[in-house]
Amino acid sequence: MQKEKVTIVEKILNANDQFAADNMQVFDDHKILAINIMASPGSGKTSLILNTIDRIANQYKLAVIEGDTAPVTIDSDKVNKKGIPAVQINTGGDCHLDALMVRKGMVELDLENLDLVIIENVGNLICPAAFNLGTHFNVVVASVTEGDDKPYKYPNIYRGIQALALNKTDLLPYVDFDMEYFCNGIKALNNDVDIFPLSCKTGEGIQPWIEWLTGKIESRS
Amino acid sequence: MQKEKVTIVEKILNANDQFAADNMQVFDDHKILAINIMASPGSGKTSLILNTIDRIANQYKLAVIEGDTAPVTIDSDKVNKKGIPAVQINTGGDCHLDALMVRKGMVELDLENLDLVIIENVGNLICPAAFNLGTHFNVVVASVTEGDDKPYKYPNIYRGIQALALNKTDLLPYVDFDMEYFCNGIKALNNDVDIFPLSCKTGEGIQPWIEWLTGKIESRS
Repeated sequence: MQKEKVTIVEKILNANDQFAADNMQVFDDHKILAINIMASPGSGKTSLILNTIDRIANQYKLAVIEGDTAPVTIDSDKVNKKGIPAVQINTGGDCHLDALMVRKGMVELDLENLDLVIIENVGNLICPAAFNLGTHFNVVVASVTEGDDKPYKYPNIYRGIQALALNKTDLLPYVDFDMEYFCNGIKALNNDVDIFPLSCKTGEGIQPWIEWLTGKIESRS
Repeated sequence: MQKEKVTIVEKILNANDQFAADNMQVFDDHKILAINIMASPGSGKTSLILNTIDRIANQYKLAVIEGDTAPVTIDSDKVNKKGIPAVQINTGGDCHLDALMVRKGMVELDLENLDLVIIENVGNLICPAAFNLGTHFNVVVASVTEGDDKPYKYPNIYRGIQALALNKTDLLPYVDFDMEYFCNGIKALNNDVDIFPLSCKTGEGIQPWIEWLTGKIESRS
């Protein structure tokens, strides 16, 4: 049974990679930048997306694909309220988005008129790492309240990312968080990741993240 | 392929339930109370366990089984430092503990001389909910910094628990957390869960949790 299970998991992953390649081709054909945002539950993925919308929506056309394990529209409602299209994907309890789910979200979007698609993955620091969605960049949102040992305990998710937003820095005075220990843990896994300490609550530190993101948008169009 | 996948997942879950029933029988034969602690990464599972050890280790003999996705002993080292046996289970990247992994940890313990076994699951608010470990009680550690909407967005994990420790209440003055909204979300899913707001940092609110736990230990021996 174990071997059979492994074989089928491999088949599923291969099929996912094919869908992911197709997704990226569609994004490229439309000169759209696509990013996949991953995090633990409650790190601030949605808050970062809302902050990003506030700062770039007057300059770029964007849309959001929201992954949720339950049929709730809490996050997509917040995005819609800002006048930005949001497609909600309910995974039906599954712990991650896969490329086919993203495809189903993409067909709901007006791809002809977009510069950026942000995909908010399901809140999970483990499983999403194994599923390529066909995005150009993978981003993790961490938060200082989760502790500085996360790169050491959940290494896989940090290996495939290009940027990390370290959120809730406004709470640094009240928690034990060793910035050097955290950053060293990230760099040991992946030396090519840009780290952006920021606070979605106060707005401090958001600007460098915005510059990184808009730089990537500009380089594609 | 989808049907084949479903069949195999069912087989795995059934096998897990059999191992779980065996685990509980072994715990019962030794009059040991076993609890399974689940949470998002960084909610404070280990902190709650360390606080619990400090308050009950003079009265009860306990051991900890630590689930980790990576071969790191950060948590089990902290438990060992307090003179409490800790067995580390490395899931090899897997996103949850299953009953067979727990069995492998149990054989490392001196079950003849224990009152309580605490299992610290992998940090994940989704996948562990599907795997019965054979414990008498399931507990979630939530934290106020994760936000008050988690019961609405990750419902499954709250359905099978008997207690919830709501940690980091010392940070309530600095975050937007609606206690009533959170508790209503829990109660709508599961009306039989005891909720313990507490701070592992200050110790405030820990005592009711300790009374709940020691009450359960007493009722088994």
